Amino acid sequence: MADKITSRAENYSEWYNDLVKAADLADHSSVRGCMVIKPYGYAIWENMQQELDKRFKETGHVNAYFPLFIPKSFLSREAAHVDGFAKECAVVTHHRLKTGPDGKSVIVDPDAKLEEELIVRPTSETIIWNTYRDWIQSYRDLPLLINQWANVVRWELRTRLFLRTTEFLWQEGHTAHATSEEAISETEQMLEVYASFAENFLAMPVIKGRKTDNERFAGAVETYCIESMMQDGKALQAGTSHFLGQNFAKAFEVKFMTPENKEEFVWATSWGVSTRLIGALIMCHSDDDGLILPPTIAPIQVVLIPIYKNDEEWNRVVPVLEDLATQLKALGIRIKIDLDRQRKPGWKFAQWELKGVPLRLALGCRDLDQQQVELARRDNKQKITLPLSGLATAVQQLLPEIQNGIFQKALDFRNTHIHEAQDWETFKKVLQEQGGFIKAHWDGTTETELKIKEETKATIRCIPLDAPEENGVCVYSGKPSRRKVIFAEAY
Amino acid sequence: MADKITSRAENYSEWYNDLVKAADLADHSSVRGCMVIKPYGYAIWENMQQELDKRFKETGHVNAYFPLFIPKSFLSREAAHVDGFAKECAVVTHHRLKTGPDGKSVIVDPDAKLEEELIVRPTSETIIWNTYRDWIQSYRDLPLLINQWANVVRWELRTRLFLRTTEFLWQEGHTAHATSEEAISETEQMLEVYASFAENFLAMPVIKGRKTDNERFAGAVETYCIESMMQDGKALQAGTSHFLGQNFAKAFEVKFMTPENKEEFVWATSWGVSTRLIGALIMCHSDDDGLILPPTIAPIQVVLIPIYKNDEEWNRVVPVLEDLATQLKALGIRIKIDLDRQRKPGWKFAQWELKGVPLRLALGCRDLDQQQVELARRDNKQKITLPLSGLATAVQQLLPEIQNGIFQKALDFRNTHIHEAQDWETFKKVLQEQGGFIKAHWDGTTETELKIKEETKATIRCIPLDAPEENGVCVYSGKPSRRKVIFAEAY
Repeated sequence: MADKITSRAENYSEWYNDLVKAADLADHSSVRGCMVIKPYGYAIWENMQQELDKRFKETGHVNAYFPLFIPKSFLSREAAHVDGFAKECAVVTHHRLKTGPDGKSVIVDPDAKLEEELIVRPTSETIIWNTYRDWIQSYRDLPLLINQWANVVRWELRTRLFLRTTEFLWQEGHTAHATSEEAISETEQMLEVYASFAENFLAMPVIKGRKTDNERFAGAVETYCIESMMQDGKALQAGTSHFLGQNFAKAFEVKFMTPENKEEFVWATSWGVSTRLIGALIMCHSDDDGLILPPTIAPIQVVLIPIYKNDEEWNRVVPVLEDLATQLKALGIRIKIDLDRQRKPGWKFAQWELKGVPLRLALGCRDLDQQQVELARRDNKQKITLPLSGLATAVQQLLPEIQNGIFQKALDFRNTHIHEAQDWETFKKVLQEQGGFIKAHWDGTTETELKIKEETKATIRCIPLDAPEENGVCVYSGKPSRRKVIFAEAY
Repeated sequence: MADKITSRAENYSEWYNDLVKAADLADHSSVRGCMVIKPYGYAIWENMQQELDKRFKETGHVNAYFPLFIPKSFLSREAAHVDGFAKECAVVTHHRLKTGPDGKSVIVDPDAKLEEELIVRPTSETIIWNTYRDWIQSYRDLPLLINQWANVVRWELRTRLFLRTTEFLWQEGHTAHATSEEAISETEQMLEVYASFAENFLAMPVIKGRKTDNERFAGAVETYCIESMMQDGKALQAGTSHFLGQNFAKAFEVKFMTPENKEEFVWATSWGVSTRLIGALIMCHSDDDGLILPPTIAPIQVVLIPIYKNDEEWNRVVPVLEDLATQLKALGIRIKIDLDRQRKPGWKFAQWELKGVPLRLALGCRDLDQQQVELARRDNKQKITLPLSGLATAVQQLLPEIQNGIFQKALDFRNTHIHEAQDWETFKKVLQEQGGFIKAHWDGTTETELKIKEETKATIRCIPLDAPEENGVCVYSGKPSRRKVIFAEAY
């Protein structure tokens, strides 16, 4: 049996760590802060990649690949960018090892020092815009709609599997446009792609919004984001889309000829989501018994388990399961038939619950006599008995129902954990006693934002895109405010 | 119009460099030895990935992800491995930058020196086997059949796009087995997967063989390889599959309990192919007018081009092309309809020839009047006129014919460029005058192998798996030999 998982009530953070390990998703490596993504975790990432890649291509993007290394001097070209990213990063200084004086160990060869140090990319705006200078001459070369699937490294002090690791996997879109309007519309489009992916594919409700000056991406004019609520009421930023203005074009001198033969700087966007989404997925849906995976993302959607007492029963039940498996596969359903004879059904039930398989199908001789099958939904633990005939089609219809159920549950949870606060005392009380998101007026200054963070740990997650303009007073300073923003403690 | 491409006869090496750039496949980056893979080149890599990944999964493998960084000390654990890989590599020594004394530039923070340097992976045997120690306890945990898609870095002195770059993309399989037999059979199976992929998907004939001691992977007991012939007669190693014995299990203490409750070291394999395959693909098939891509791998399989004199003709022709495009897409054919009105058909013809699109479909009003279409095959420049009705199906049947034609041409070329040499004078004469592969007897010593290399630049590409046992004498030393091997100059 798998290791015991701490309950959410006991310690939410431990619950998460235990679950990631018990469900075989990932583990720490012997390299500080770097994780190993195990096959089951990686299969979830592959499903995310495949779906996102499809959505990127449907919106006109193509993939490319840029170098892992960035010359140190590139980082200081864009003034805001260097402050955000040049601090904690992996620096390559040498290009050779040699045998040490003991004749066995290896040491860094001091003669192989690089003239200019290389940074392992924390994000690729600089190297990409340095390349775009060669690719863009005329308005005919625009828009350039490129995405990259890659690993990036940010030297994090405190790391947590998936949520914050020194190395992580992600995609980063980098587009170039002839006008500001077009770039802004691309930024908004990609936010929409992320939001739709999160809600319809990961069954994770999100709030779309803009970041404050203080939380904006280093080098961006405007950062859009999607924010989701975890089961402990904390916020998790699940994806960002940045309008970069002409900042990187100016830093790397990327100009183009307009149809009117005028030379202008190019407009840019960048946008990304990462393996962090796996952490979000877990914390949004799962329970004390293990993962709960929406069917769309589950590497295994249905597990089939034989119930039997002896070889005779096994020989009756297994061929029927194998036939069902074939039918389900023919409908494009991802299945696993668990024919391990050394494990009892009860053990298997618990194991596949832990792994979050959306639907469990068990079949014994009694079921067979009655020409029926017992199904168990992972999301609400509901058991359903269905006739054997037409089962594959019934399962196919059940999967979207489960998907909806998971989304609806997360949505209800989130909506009941968004509170409003009109004054500072209420704000602090709600945050302390109930947690979750707080909608409140804010005076628009970084000063107030930082003071609130200092006193409560809550930060402004976003200025929701759908926040109505209204007159109000800041919950902290009492100064005038034009719209409510979302505060929360965040991952 | 694209830059002029040097002809193969004039300078084969320049032809390759020109073509890679002119066809928009890749370019040098501002980081020494690292390339940028452009969208069209990356689309070819994506097709390779997709097909290989399918074949890996069909043979029972799953994907996972291991850290980019390897602690320096890991490299010296396996004695042979460290000699092969610890020499030219990227070494991370620091984890922070800070603002320089001028207040603008950034410098490496001397206070952020790592206790142990990290190496950017040149290959992942060490970090993976260090992880497998935690994953493998019993025979029940075996076999472990894992693949990783990743970037790797080897600090190369002389680089060429795709063929030899400091950073490249690849997949590396790392499997663990309970017995030597099972590991050897996995090694052979993966060689077969590579060979079949090369021949049936890339239309590139390969010779399967074993490497000599001298050419073996650092840390392997046996290295299998597939070798293909480029159009200049040189050999290119297109993939390798290694039987690693218990070398890495011993270096990282990876043991398992047998069913008989005995503790034993685990048996290992590793196998990989890389973006180098794109270089091989180009050099195997393409001509002085540009790329020739087999339909299986071509990002665009059919390009549709309207021929028109005026708006009226345009309005007659384009809807028919659009309809054809829809029909072709419905059959799963990857198409591009080129509706650029600023470029003449002749320019487009040359452009898509350069890009290696297997089939060009041109339609003008005269064709339309006769209800026919003109097709041009890229591989043999043959023109075919076909009736408009039933065209999509005809195209679908034509594509495998083109695929076969490309393979057959490469096979004929290779077979007519394999020569036998019985004595040393013939060996040198054939190599100098005709090039290609030479089949010759060899005495089995590294000494002879190195002397031959010194005198002729030819190395032993492989000991072919199908080489019959026979008595002979070494072409160089005159000593006894048991089988012929393949010599060639190599990339």
